[in-house]
Amino acid sequence: MEQSGRLTLPTDVDMVDETIRLKELLGADALRDCDGTTFPDALLSQDAKKYATYYTTRKDNEWAEANPDEVQQEYLISDRVTARGETLRIELMKGFHREQLKVNTIHDPKRWWEVIDRTTGEVVPTDQWDYDEATGEVEIQTVPYHQYTVSFLAFLIWDPVHMFNFITNDWKDAPHQITFDVRLPKTQQHVKEKLKKWCEDNPEINVVRFTTFFHQFTLTFDDQKREKFVDWFGYSASVSPYILEQFEKWAGYKFRPEFIVDQGYHNSIFRVPSKEFRDYIEFQQIEVSKLAKEIVDIVHSYGKEAMMFVGDHWIGTEPFGKYFANIGLDAVVGSVGDGVTMRMVSDIKGVKYTEGRLLPYFFPDVFCEGGDPIGEAKENWLKVRRSILRSPLDRIGYGGYLKLAAQWDGFIDAIKFVVGEFRLIHENMQGESAYTAPFKVAVLSAWGPLRGWMSYQVHHSIWHREIYSYNGVLECLSGMPFDVEFIGFDDIKNGISDDIKVIINFGDAETAFSGGENWIDAEVVTKIREFVDNGGGFIGVGEPTAYQFEGRYFQLSDVLGVDREMMYSLSTDKYNELNPNHFILEDIEGEVDFGEGMSRIYAQGEDYQILSMDGEYSQLVVNDYGKGHGVYFAGLPYSPQNCRILMRAIYYAAGMEEEMKKFYVTDVDTELAVFEKTGKIAVINNSKEAKRTDLYVNGELAEKLELEPMEMRWVDYNANI
Amino acid sequence: MEQSGRLTLPTDVDMVDETIRLKELLGADALRDCDGTTFPDALLSQDAKKYATYYTTRKDNEWAEANPDEVQQEYLISDRVTARGETLRIELMKGFHREQLKVNTIHDPKRWWEVIDRTTGEVVPTDQWDYDEATGEVEIQTVPYHQYTVSFLAFLIWDPVHMFNFITNDWKDAPHQITFDVRLPKTQQHVKEKLKKWCEDNPEINVVRFTTFFHQFTLTFDDQKREKFVDWFGYSASVSPYILEQFEKWAGYKFRPEFIVDQGYHNSIFRVPSKEFRDYIEFQQIEVSKLAKEIVDIVHSYGKEAMMFVGDHWIGTEPFGKYFANIGLDAVVGSVGDGVTMRMVSDIKGVKYTEGRLLPYFFPDVFCEGGDPIGEAKENWLKVRRSILRSPLDRIGYGGYLKLAAQWDGFIDAIKFVVGEFRLIHENMQGESAYTAPFKVAVLSAWGPLRGWMSYQVHHSIWHREIYSYNGVLECLSGMPFDVEFIGFDDIKNGISDDIKVIINFGDAETAFSGGENWIDAEVVTKIREFVDNGGGFIGVGEPTAYQFEGRYFQLSDVLGVDREMMYSLSTDKYNELNPNHFILEDIEGEVDFGEGMSRIYAQGEDYQILSMDGEYSQLVVNDYGKGHGVYFAGLPYSPQNCRILMRAIYYAAGMEEEMKKFYVTDVDTELAVFEKTGKIAVINNSKEAKRTDLYVNGELAEKLELEPMEMRWVDYNANI
Repeated sequence: MEQSGRLTLPTDVDMVDETIRLKELLGADALRDCDGTTFPDALLSQDAKKYATYYTTRKDNEWAEANPDEVQQEYLISDRVTARGETLRIELMKGFHREQLKVNTIHDPKRWWEVIDRTTGEVVPTDQWDYDEATGEVEIQTVPYHQYTVSFLAFLIWDPVHMFNFITNDWKDAPHQITFDVRLPKTQQHVKEKLKKWCEDNPEINVVRFTTFFHQFTLTFDDQKREKFVDWFGYSASVSPYILEQFEKWAGYKFRPEFIVDQGYHNSIFRVPSKEFRDYIEFQQIEVSKLAKEIVDIVHSYGKEAMMFVGDHWIGTEPFGKYFANIGLDAVVGSVGDGVTMRMVSDIKGVKYTEGRLLPYFFPDVFCEGGDPIGEAKENWLKVRRSILRSPLDRIGYGGYLKLAAQWDGFIDAIKFVVGEFRLIHENMQGESAYTAPFKVAVLSAWGPLRGWMSYQVHHSIWHREIYSYNGVLECLSGMPFDVEFIGFDDIKNGISDDIKVIINFGDAETAFSGGENWIDAEVVTKIREFVDNGGGFIGVGEPTAYQFEGRYFQLSDVLGVDREMMYSLSTDKYNELNPNHFILEDIEGEVDFGEGMSRIYAQGEDYQILSMDGEYSQLVVNDYGKGHGVYFAGLPYSPQNCRILMRAIYYAAGMEEEMKKFYVTDVDTELAVFEKTGKIAVINNSKEAKRTDLYVNGELAEKLELEPMEMRWVDYNANI
Repeated sequence: MEQSGRLTLPTDVDMVDETIRLKELLGADALRDCDGTTFPDALLSQDAKKYATYYTTRKDNEWAEANPDEVQQEYLISDRVTARGETLRIELMKGFHREQLKVNTIHDPKRWWEVIDRTTGEVVPTDQWDYDEATGEVEIQTVPYHQYTVSFLAFLIWDPVHMFNFITNDWKDAPHQITFDVRLPKTQQHVKEKLKKWCEDNPEINVVRFTTFFHQFTLTFDDQKREKFVDWFGYSASVSPYILEQFEKWAGYKFRPEFIVDQGYHNSIFRVPSKEFRDYIEFQQIEVSKLAKEIVDIVHSYGKEAMMFVGDHWIGTEPFGKYFANIGLDAVVGSVGDGVTMRMVSDIKGVKYTEGRLLPYFFPDVFCEGGDPIGEAKENWLKVRRSILRSPLDRIGYGGYLKLAAQWDGFIDAIKFVVGEFRLIHENMQGESAYTAPFKVAVLSAWGPLRGWMSYQVHHSIWHREIYSYNGVLECLSGMPFDVEFIGFDDIKNGISDDIKVIINFGDAETAFSGGENWIDAEVVTKIREFVDNGGGFIGVGEPTAYQFEGRYFQLSDVLGVDREMMYSLSTDKYNELNPNHFILEDIEGEVDFGEGMSRIYAQGEDYQILSMDGEYSQLVVNDYGKGHGVYFAGLPYSPQNCRILMRAIYYAAGMEEEMKKFYVTDVDTELAVFEKTGKIAVINNSKEAKRTDLYVNGELAEKLELEPMEMRWVDYNANI
């Protein structure tokens, strides 16, 4: 069994001996620094790869201060203010933290700002407002009792992640790191030269770990230094007049601040993306990938590897976009909070290897009184392990202050367990893939492939009451024996690919994930009806296909067998009755957890069967539709039981119930991954209790297993056929 | 104390002696027959008013059968059927009960029917479909995988209420009563002649009780004789080519079946009414009131009174409409299920007196094993009594089979209690009104005054999980010391009346009661903002002012201090915190009941105070807005506690907290009504437990009272000032 390799550890100047001890103990083959730590010279001679975090956009205040017009910018929206009279003054920076952001008065406000009457949606002509620099207020000629906002450009005078780390760690003396815009020619030149010099000065560093390239995701603080707005996918801080003028030329139409500000929603990933925002993302990908390649080429020219962190300034790189591979990176590394965020890294193409930074991060917010870093490490691994068996990371690692980890009783043992299992998986799979069902499962949203494994997140893998009942679908899928493809509505219209047998659509109505107005596109609904009629499966969760139109809320209510009562059809009697006897629930004991669920779902049509009800309404419904099937879930948070239910629902929807028991374990808390080529089967216990489970191979009972809590048992495949 | 009068009892041929006994015992001064009972000749000489139910539209099958083209008609919509190929056959009567309805092939289908592609919303040209009378199917040339419906006319060959009574009572031999359309000239002539003859033949009858006039509310049965569709407000059965051609002339535009069928929602009261449907209601009111007056005139010409039952064929009469008083009725009688439906009768203007038919109805569905008619009578009276103190009925009565009531142990005593209290109220109020606050409370909806006391109902006072949390607002108001006015959005635009101090808007988004698209009318929101800014109050329940537009879901989020998280603003941090110390909750102990509540409500702005939270979200929020106030409730089902909370919220919203204790009782389960002119104060205990409550008069503690369960205590006003 492999005892070393595939592991990266953080280090720091005061941890030289401890780093060496832990490196040996855990078999780490790479060491790294982090934001706030420094790589000790004494370790440069160690037999390990040395990673250095590298920031293109900050840690050079001298440059930033000398070039204030090249500081990064962000589109902000002021408070919404209701006019009481014929004029109104709006204080732009009210509610923002003035140490982080500063109104941009260098570029002409009349060209780059927008004052909007939010009561009518109309833009206020530029001759009807003025910016008063002395007070920081915009004075507007108003219609009484209309509401107004000002969209304006501000300089990002404190890097948001540096600010976050500064606040979280209670740093005192560190100067605020100013961000500068590498897209601007002068700064670009400076940054490239600096990188060359740095490469020359640091010959022992093997891997330049970019954190990341040029544009920070949106993270804004309020006047009390609390988080005010965070969107891990946000493009609001990727703007500058220089970029926007280029965009106008490329797109062929005039830019409007509203394309970015978006009524104050800032194009949240939950918004059905507008054409203009899609264009902007496309343009940014082209430009960012081009410039990133130039940066990576410099690194390569010094014989070093270039690694990108999927986070911080990752905006515009879009790892699932069309241009990412062009960058020519050697590797990506990303924070892994669960199975979904693991797949968000491990499924990236166009790099030589992937690395996952597991949780917990060695920061004092977890390694503190009341914190439970060992519990977090175990929970994290339980979720991550099952998805690694499907699509493995090549490496894992940790970040933060090694000192915190080393001093926490028992924590290093927990890591040792994780690393051991990780290496064992690689040893047994030998680069081969686990068995998957002979069809693809497509996840349909308005984002399509661009947001693969990225839906239903606000900030990277943070739990929200509004999202967990949907995010569970992806978390379940991340470790299941299915090839998952993320598709958009154009992919439907261009013809559903033959290898897809099941389409899943989930989310709240009129979000990008449900699809909004796309559902009244006749081509979309007819293509899907035809697909199901001919034997396909369509699974909906929450408010799938929802858009109120022509007498239905769910536009594919005929396929799903359900609709949602929006008060308009209370006059219609429903007579819905429960019948839980169904393939999907065969293994399932006890109640099904629908998370937040969805109220007022009723079955309709003649071919449905209701498997679960809440009073007179339904939560789980199957429906025959021609040769195919619809399945409806009111919600599907992640749990081992829901993984089982979803797996059964997928096989049922695909009309391939027989295929399911090709490889199967009976206990709902257990799963398996079969590596036919290497002759190995992993049976994992996803619970913290011991479990008995029967293993089926090729449809036959092969072994009766007793698994320890959290155990991963490897079984010889060939002995069982 | 009055021992008799104000009471109507039902009778039947086999109940002569018992009727006389009960009439004396209860002091009834009127007797009536019912559907399925007959007035015994032996009682015609009794000293009491004699009511006879009279049906203009049925109980004359001879006429109906001789004139099949004058049978009443209804617009139906077929099942929605998805085309699999280029043609599709839809069986029109599938799912309808063929003994109730029959496809109308007398009038040209191509003129009066409509085939609609529900995938696009387009009407299928009439040359692309045909009706096959032999099979009862419409064959349509289709686009594959589009969905189609056929809207068609059917004859109502069994009166829906007769059918309902027939099924409920398990009648066997009664012939199905066919309905005929009194609007048609030939039938109209016949009905008038018949009425004249009937008046001549029944000289002892004093009151002709019309059940009702011409058009039945929508009540359709399915193929298993179960209720399929019921809308107590529905106009779908008020149509015929004769009427529709008149409508076209009056309206000046072409009629479309879709105006009635409305995507299959049949213009449910929850739909924001379309212009065309409003026009149709207006037209029907004009015509119905004109013809009803002719009928009433006949009755008057025989020296009898004309009474209308608000139910059954009441469609088009619209008691809160502009034309109702023109009918010249002497009285209305309506079923009284609670305070709201009591006010729906007692607030009707343009009649000499009002009568409420209290529950339970003497039918075997309640007077049966497991039934609790005494409990129902008490519950009913508790809800009705408090609203009678605000706006009294002139009379009460009961309906159904007297035999069932007479034989139920203790039931007659329960009635005696109710009747006694009812008479006492009249004796003490002497026709004067109880004290109300010195301002009006307006209920704002897209229906305006037309649906006063009628919102949030599907079928007359039937409980639904979807509506009780809203209907509670009206139920509370029905017995509260406020003048309530029902207003529409035009009333806002035309200028909010000076006597209104508080506006209430409640309901689910995009229903008629919330208001839908009216909320993006700049005139509406500016007028209300101005109103509140100048000291008015705005109370919202559920999804008030909701319509997603320009960055807000609640368009008056600035006034209310809250918005609803529709997933678009998850990136914005909220930091909402609870502070329940407020005037509104001063009396309140324990949890507040928000019923079904409303998820994801968050406070925003700077002037809010959150009085109740559910996790991170809010349920009860107050907001300062200029000189006025907003109040938000997540839901408000009826309960004595919620009456108190709403009363406090209204005084708070009006900025008149001081006024509240002018007349006040401390215990939340008790209320009072003050008759200053007659010098009487009624203190009522709305609970079934004994209560101690302190009575305040003109702001001073006047008496400490101990009330029996359900007690109504009369206190002398003048002794306490």
